[in-house]
Amino acid sequence: MASFEGAVELDPAQFGRIDAIIDGALAEDLASGDVTSRATLPATARAHAEIVAKAELVFCGGPVAARVFERVDDDISVECIAAEGAWMKPGELALRMAGPARALLAAERTALNLLQRMSGIATKTARHVAAAGDRLRLTDTRKTMPGLRVLDRYAIRAGGGHNHRNDLGAAVLIKENHIRVAGGVAEAIGAAKAHAPHTMRIECEVTNFEELETAIEAGADIVMLDNFDDADLREAVRRAAGRVLLEVSGNVTLERLPIIAASGVDLASMGGLTHSVPAADLSMLVRIDA
Amino acid sequence: MASFEGAVELDPAQFGRIDAIIDGALAEDLASGDVTSRATLPATARAHAEIVAKAELVFCGGPVAARVFERVDDDISVECIAAEGAWMKPGELALRMAGPARALLAAERTALNLLQRMSGIATKTARHVAAAGDRLRLTDTRKTMPGLRVLDRYAIRAGGGHNHRNDLGAAVLIKENHIRVAGGVAEAIGAAKAHAPHTMRIECEVTNFEELETAIEAGADIVMLDNFDDADLREAVRRAAGRVLLEVSGNVTLERLPIIAASGVDLASMGGLTHSVPAADLSMLVRIDA
Amino acid sequence: MASFEGAVELDPAQFGRIDAIIDGALAEDLASGDVTSRATLPATARAHAEIVAKAELVFCGGPVAARVFERVDDDISVECIAAEGAWMKPGELALRMAGPARALLAAERTALNLLQRMSGIATKTARHVAAAGDRLRLTDTRKTMPGLRVLDRYAIRAGGGHNHRNDLGAAVLIKENHIRVAGGVAEAIGAAKAHAPHTMRIECEVTNFEELETAIEAGADIVMLDNFDDADLREAVRRAAGRVLLEVSGNVTLERLPIIAASGVDLASMGGLTHSVPAADLSMLVRIDA
Amino acid sequence: MASFEGAVELDPAQFGRIDAIIDGALAEDLASGDVTSRATLPATARAHAEIVAKAELVFCGGPVAARVFERVDDDISVECIAAEGAWMKPGELALRMAGPARALLAAERTALNLLQRMSGIATKTARHVAAAGDRLRLTDTRKTMPGLRVLDRYAIRAGGGHNHRNDLGAAVLIKENHIRVAGGVAEAIGAAKAHAPHTMRIECEVTNFEELETAIEAGADIVMLDNFDDADLREAVRRAAGRVLLEVSGNVTLERLPIIAASGVDLASMGGLTHSVPAADLSMLVRIDA
Amino acid sequence: MASFEGAVELDPAQFGRIDAIIDGALAEDLASGDVTSRATLPATARAHAEIVAKAELVFCGGPVAARVFERVDDDISVECIAAEGAWMKPGELALRMAGPARALLAAERTALNLLQRMSGIATKTARHVAAAGDRLRLTDTRKTMPGLRVLDRYAIRAGGGHNHRNDLGAAVLIKENHIRVAGGVAEAIGAAKAHAPHTMRIECEVTNFEELETAIEAGADIVMLDNFDDADLREAVRRAAGRVLLEVSGNVTLERLPIIAASGVDLASMGGLTHSVPAADLSMLVRIDA
Amino acid sequence: MASFEGAVELDPAQFGRIDAIIDGALAEDLASGDVTSRATLPATARAHAEIVAKAELVFCGGPVAARVFERVDDDISVECIAAEGAWMKPGELALRMAGPARALLAAERTALNLLQRMSGIATKTARHVAAAGDRLRLTDTRKTMPGLRVLDRYAIRAGGGHNHRNDLGAAVLIKENHIRVAGGVAEAIGAAKAHAPHTMRIECEVTNFEELETAIEAGADIVMLDNFDDADLREAVRRAAGRVLLEVSGNVTLERLPIIAASGVDLASMGGLTHSVPAADLSMLVRIDA
Repeated sequence: MASFEGAVELDPAQFGRIDAIIDGALAEDLASGDVTSRATLPATARAHAEIVAKAELVFCGGPVAARVFERVDDDISVECIAAEGAWMKPGELALRMAGPARALLAAERTALNLLQRMSGIATKTARHVAAAGDRLRLTDTRKTMPGLRVLDRYAIRAGGGHNHRNDLGAAVLIKENHIRVAGGVAEAIGAAKAHAPHTMRIECEVTNFEELETAIEAGADIVMLDNFDDADLREAVRRAAGRVLLEVSGNVTLERLPIIAASGVDLASMGGLTHSVPAADLSMLVRIDA
Repeated sequence: MASFEGAVELDPAQFGRIDAIIDGALAEDLASGDVTSRATLPATARAHAEIVAKAELVFCGGPVAARVFERVDDDISVECIAAEGAWMKPGELALRMAGPARALLAAERTALNLLQRMSGIATKTARHVAAAGDRLRLTDTRKTMPGLRVLDRYAIRAGGGHNHRNDLGAAVLIKENHIRVAGGVAEAIGAAKAHAPHTMRIECEVTNFEELETAIEAGADIVMLDNFDDADLREAVRRAAGRVLLEVSGNVTLERLPIIAASGVDLASMGGLTHSVPAADLSMLVRIDA
Repeated sequence: MASFEGAVELDPAQFGRIDAIIDGALAEDLASGDVTSRATLPATARAHAEIVAKAELVFCGGPVAARVFERVDDDISVECIAAEGAWMKPGELALRMAGPARALLAAERTALNLLQRMSGIATKTARHVAAAGDRLRLTDTRKTMPGLRVLDRYAIRAGGGHNHRNDLGAAVLIKENHIRVAGGVAEAIGAAKAHAPHTMRIECEVTNFEELETAIEAGADIVMLDNFDDADLREAVRRAAGRVLLEVSGNVTLERLPIIAASGVDLASMGGLTHSVPAADLSMLVRIDA
Repeated sequence: MASFEGAVELDPAQFGRIDAIIDGALAEDLASGDVTSRATLPATARAHAEIVAKAELVFCGGPVAARVFERVDDDISVECIAAEGAWMKPGELALRMAGPARALLAAERTALNLLQRMSGIATKTARHVAAAGDRLRLTDTRKTMPGLRVLDRYAIRAGGGHNHRNDLGAAVLIKENHIRVAGGVAEAIGAAKAHAPHTMRIECEVTNFEELETAIEAGADIVMLDNFDDADLREAVRRAAGRVLLEVSGNVTLERLPIIAASGVDLASMGGLTHSVPAADLSMLVRIDA
Repeated sequence: MASFEGAVELDPAQFGRIDAIIDGALAEDLASGDVTSRATLPATARAHAEIVAKAELVFCGGPVAARVFERVDDDISVECIAAEGAWMKPGELALRMAGPARALLAAERTALNLLQRMSGIATKTARHVAAAGDRLRLTDTRKTMPGLRVLDRYAIRAGGGHNHRNDLGAAVLIKENHIRVAGGVAEAIGAAKAHAPHTMRIECEVTNFEELETAIEAGADIVMLDNFDDADLREAVRRAAGRVLLEVSGNVTLERLPIIAASGVDLASMGGLTHSVPAADLSMLVRIDA
Repeated sequence: MASFEGAVELDPAQFGRIDAIIDGALAEDLASGDVTSRATLPATARAHAEIVAKAELVFCGGPVAARVFERVDDDISVECIAAEGAWMKPGELALRMAGPARALLAAERTALNLLQRMSGIATKTARHVAAAGDRLRLTDTRKTMPGLRVLDRYAIRAGGGHNHRNDLGAAVLIKENHIRVAGGVAEAIGAAKAHAPHTMRIECEVTNFEELETAIEAGADIVMLDNFDDADLREAVRRAAGRVLLEVSGNVTLERLPIIAASGVDLASMGGLTHSVPAADLSMLVRIDA
């Protein structure tokens, strides 16, 4: 397995938000200081440290971890060795740090908690993207960890996945309740076209072929096929005939992804990429300078 | 399986912190409103909703989910049906809500994201507590989700587990680096006794029996046995002879917990209870009033 | 002139953000209290107050002004009389309040500053929407007042206008620099299609007919015609032939809007609706109870 | 027209507040990043940019705009060319920037929104100060943009105007309601003298000559003449005979300012300097390095 | 000793700021909850509580303490018995509370810390105001506790004292450095008159009679006599002859206040009213309902 | 008197919290800038400044004061001369600063307010530690200044004292109400042992020898002797016989500390170290560069 092509970068524009996440996490762990280091280590002690992979994983979050160290003490220097989105083998070096020993130990847990979450998402995503193949786009959902959406979505991209809408204001997604109150699929889509900004696509969830056809004729840009079985996916592709994007939602698994891909639909979205993620195994070694 | 004995409650004192978590999560999803509801639902529409379990799980987070709805619109009423820490069967009702339809839909995802995280932790914890039995105390670690520590720790308790130290300032935990710089196990423990508040216990990590004896004689309250195998755990218990609390850390799994418990150690701590948690399966049904 | 059809409502989901705006504005005016009221009015004095239009205007911001009063003192009751988005004549009553006199006077300026800004935008927008007619959609831009975007965009809707993308992350808008670096119009659109969430439309700015055709063929959803003259607008409509949405940007004025509308383009965006807005004339009368 | 004499500077003490404004504005535009730049520009691309005047204007906000760029990415360097409070001609260069291309584009709109607001106020103020002449002091009011008061007031000074009281706690301003409840002009002024800090001047609004005399005798420092016509202004100056400062409020226009000045009053305050301001025309040119 | 005449009230306008102080203080004490109450008290236990004076003191802070309880749990009811600014005898009842036992105990320390600070300031101020007599106004300074200025200044007023300027932006106070750089007393006062808002008084510190005369002639409103001895104070009063307010600063003590008052100066400011304050002795009794 | 042995350092991990305190304090004083400096000093003026002791004191807060200057303007350089926790004589130099004159003057009051508070606590603590002698540990309480706990506790350590529990969640302290509701001393201690994290010591307040024995047998780690007289302290020590730590609380004074120490108890806690503290006398001299 090789690294993903194309660089994956964090947006400089989002670092204000990321700093807020980091500061909140540091506050949880350090509000009353580190009593052990204060008692046992001189304030002047300096140290070197390394973060290494302990298992095969897709690395993600290096610049975020670096920021954790810098915010605890800007006297810590950090070198990012591993590339964002790259596969690492056990024992490979991800980051290298040097600076005041107390500050390095104070930042360790917060940096690792973030790295292991982000690399965990990237790794799970990469495994599912591999199963989905080149033509089917695999996306996340809004089932992200409360407070960490910006990082979760970035880790999805680092793993080779794509993002769905960022939030409830970022795109129209018409579901059952909207349809019933609006008076039908066509009416709901019409209302959305009338009121939503023209820059948003309009997606509509459907449960059968009749609704699919209505949605297409009413001008939906994307149709979400809710719990369609494999045969129905293929039929939906045949009927849509390229007039809209087709998205599969519900019951998307590693095993089923090749079948979904083969059906010819455009997109599969999967909440489990962010709501049920094993932490990637990374650890930090600290050597206090003699 | 029955509910845990002893009520599990959220501390009123912590609701300021919990509100901040909720507001942050809502801001991620609702900063620019809900364009779909605005386009398709009248502002005056009202609705009823229910959150139900879709799988067997230990429920946790009801009051938190209730607060999510209230903060979006205090015109929403919420009734918590399921008890915190109770086992639920698929189809059982957890919460019942009524209020403005747009507000209910706006709050849905955030409420579920929190509930599914918290119930996921409680469920995983409960399964491991059952394996640990009555005598071995199972605890969490500081490997919590950044920003969510207060909820993660509460969910551990709801699942029948116990909390380890809250943060780096809440107790002394002497590890390898502190020992080396301080000049030895006894020196590090002595420094901690001299400088740490008298209200904190002093815990020291050891790697062999010699360090164990030194730590006990230097006055440690708790000794963490780092990656001891099963036979060594039993030997450590024999040697310590009740003079300190013994904690097992590293390689704590569902399968090994009965063996650890049988060794006679007091505590086992397990990062995976919070860092690698499948979301519990709960969903929300909304019925907009005719 | 009559009120706009269709109710215009503030999203409950956005009140967290709006409260933050209100609290920030109150902090500017009240950080060290109201020294005049403290010196001259008893703390127990109560009062009635009315906010009335002093000129013909489209009213907007009633619920926001109400929230200002409630946040200063929740003992103030507020009744919103005028409908959001309704034309008012001079002398007409917009809001009616009652409560502690000191609190009413403390909230007055902040409430009016917000109301006059929002009604100013709604009024200017309504005049331009009238000039644009039924078929041409008039939109705002990102040239909103720093910190007030959520209110500015709402006021645009209250005036009968539409919103463009909310922020840099809400839709793709390819401009000259992106095109040059990407290597051309087609390459930039291709990159956007590959990387942007499928829920976003892709808009591309063009300066001539050749780029227009390239953009359409590359799959743009919307094309922004940058400073096209009237004849060129009509030619662009003819060439596009309904394959994309066409947006006019630059040199959009009250006088030219009918001409733009007649050209057949779909959209006109206008920064002046938010960056250059005379305050609407509203004032507050307070009668302290005898 | 030449630049104002005397340097106009932002107070270092206020940059904490200004940073909060900038961060709030950036959050509005960049919470989910810049999807277009991410898709079309390499993260490593660098660029040069210039902000230039497109019309005749009084420049204001250079250090604020510079801070916007630095907060998005401190790898951007900014050179302020135009002096604060200086008149610029169309085409003149105001700021020059260099740095990462994505960051420059991300910051562009926020920087311009602030610059155009501040220069708009400075320009309008300068035109009115010119009409007021050397002896009449022209001031702002508390009718500033919610959240932007510190910048609005600074821009007033950059345009050659003066600031009125900063907020309700900064000075006593007795109006009709205070007078009626206190029992009269003299009683209200007496109460203010008894309770307000001795560092504040006491200003009292009057509606006729009798109240003017009462206010002076009761010890007011400043009298606000509420909607006095031109002849009455002259008579008020004659009667006050230098015993108090006289301030004109209401119906202050560009056309009437010379007449007000000729009457001999000391001050004129004008809400329109901040509540109804056309944006000054400035734009940014970006050249991405080859 | 009797209560102060004239009601002393907290400004509703300042409760936003006060809530922020309270929330910050609660966060310090309750970030990880109250482990003792959680272990030993049922969540359903309710209690009654009383706060009583344990020594003679001037009471201050009742509404602030009430707010502490309400913010921990709005199910707590609070009755303020003692009047703000009233002298209390040992054993007298100040506040009475009822509500959930855990919440009452969680709020206790924070409520008392605030009450004891505020009543401490009010008591010390009242003793010094009594020594100053009716004609000399005793004021605070900017030597307030960081973060608590709004409460410190209110407690000064509750004790019968007056406030000096609120902050560096609230009034002009020219000191030695300003004078030297400006080129002299007259030049500094002239610069302040030219640039400061007309609503502020201009105060100038002087060290001798020559500077006093210069300051008066240059138009100072208030002159601060820096470390003048008793005879010089009387001479300054004679020379000033009512043309300015005279303020004594430095070496203001309980013993010297009658002498200062007899000299005929108008004001004495005293940092010790806020920077060196013994806590007033109040305590809380809790009775958990049987 | 000599400096305390052993370096006293601020924890780098806590600077986020300290910066928040500093920013809050600066906001109180500088929200609308420094009008005097703006009027009388050129923006380009630079200055040197020194902070010196004016009385004998234990210095504390140098790095905090330094941070105040840097946050107002990072162009100010600061040199900390005096060591944290060192005794200073009148006239000795504590800090030396250089930088923009306006910024130095703007930061002066906030820096001194913090330094004088912290050095005041350190000085009072040092005097009491000297009275307590080498064997009795003197601790603070939770009676700290709201918002400043982290600094108050650090100043205690700088004065040679020790910290008690940081907050209600940091250790178990069982008092009368917990005992009564739990059903007795033994029951309350048992509940705490069952529910509190194993890293916390369990402290229990007792009022007589019977409760003392019960507490020891139930497994308390620390017993607080509530208002025991001198003879009873000695008897308690005799009975406890080293089985628990004994803490004296209530009526701890400078005069009684040697007697308490002689009784053989381990700890004395004293609220007055933080709730009733005279400011240490330090002042700042500024010389604006010619």
